[in-house]
Amino acid sequence: MRLYSYFRSSASYRVRIALALKGLPYEYRAVHLLKEGGQQMQPDFRQLSPDALVPVLEDEGQALTQSLAIIEYLDETHPQPALLPAEPAERARVRALALTIACDIHPLNNLRVLKYLKNPLGIDQQGRDDWYRHWVESGLAAFERMLAGSPRTGQCCHGDQPTLADLCLVPQVYNARRLKADLDAMPTVVRIADHCAALPAFEAAHPDRQPDAE
Amino acid sequence: MRLYSYFRSSASYRVRIALALKGLPYEYRAVHLLKEGGQQMQPDFRQLSPDALVPVLEDEGQALTQSLAIIEYLDETHPQPALLPAEPAERARVRALALTIACDIHPLNNLRVLKYLKNPLGIDQQGRDDWYRHWVESGLAAFERMLAGSPRTGQCCHGDQPTLADLCLVPQVYNARRLKADLDAMPTVVRIADHCAALPAFEAAHPDRQPDAE
Repeated sequence: MRLYSYFRSSASYRVRIALALKGLPYEYRAVHLLKEGGQQMQPDFRQLSPDALVPVLEDEGQALTQSLAIIEYLDETHPQPALLPAEPAERARVRALALTIACDIHPLNNLRVLKYLKNPLGIDQQGRDDWYRHWVESGLAAFERMLAGSPRTGQCCHGDQPTLADLCLVPQVYNARRLKADLDAMPTVVRIADHCAALPAFEAAHPDRQPDAE
Repeated sequence: MRLYSYFRSSASYRVRIALALKGLPYEYRAVHLLKEGGQQMQPDFRQLSPDALVPVLEDEGQALTQSLAIIEYLDETHPQPALLPAEPAERARVRALALTIACDIHPLNNLRVLKYLKNPLGIDQQGRDDWYRHWVESGLAAFERMLAGSPRTGQCCHGDQPTLADLCLVPQVYNARRLKADLDAMPTVVRIADHCAALPAFEAAHPDRQPDAE
């Protein structure tokens, strides 16, 4: 398997955790999103990734895109350890938690969105940072309510073993802290993110540990 | 089953199509997103939906959130007709198409985001419309490349039967047309969306056919 990744991309980070939890070896190919022009805009990469986004996972001649689709694929092809529970309603809870981050927080704070806010919209650095924190803080506050209100929350988002929800949460909290978002009102989020981040597979997937880390 | 929906919410529209394709009866509960204060902000609704978003599906005493998680749940609990193919790599393709809309287009054009652009950011109507069309057009252009570049594309996004990808595409194209986005450069998107929209289940789920349509 070959993973096209950028060390700081939180969608790449999710997939790296899944690969590490399942103990799957892979070749790391760095795609630098910030270099002039953006390596993700090069024709050979766009051949693999029609939306010019990382991560892309190549496996058995197929190029797979979209982090959550890649993780579900890995979970179906390498079922142990399982990243989703067995029961449909429990699977729905874990997927809903993951999508709360993947749909309601992360897309708003993507690099291309922050660029558009700057130009053409002319929003200054302060305004862009406020935007970032607004969506992180309101999104993680909803996530906190989902966790705190459920008896199924354990050491991890769902029980005591990492699931797809934790794979989304840890990179999002890492980003939130980088941007100095206020996490005081979400103790369950912080407790679970810190618990998971200390597990070996999460540590191995950390941005600072990647070949392209700066 | 009971569905909390807003007729024009494209995430609600996706779930309505799934329920119709599977022939599942349900009680329709309208949640008006635009009324003063927003019905989605009422405490009893937020009890069901911690992120104050529609749709919510109640089934067997559980309140399920996030449209894609709800649709996967319906597909697991009512497998016929299947909304995902059987093979992992094909499932990954369908999910990646769905997520291209659900993560890369739709969240940027949500009501709450357009409101934030207006206030506090002070972006005028023209700027907000340009924002909307920018993300729809660039996102659907990527979707077009994913469709046009694959032999697995058929009458629908994946083969000739509707999948999760079509459930996301039809509401997104409906919205794109409402906002007069330019779809000229994406003939496959338009062909497939129009084919699916004419199927009875898609027609039954159309915003204009809902009890709260205006």
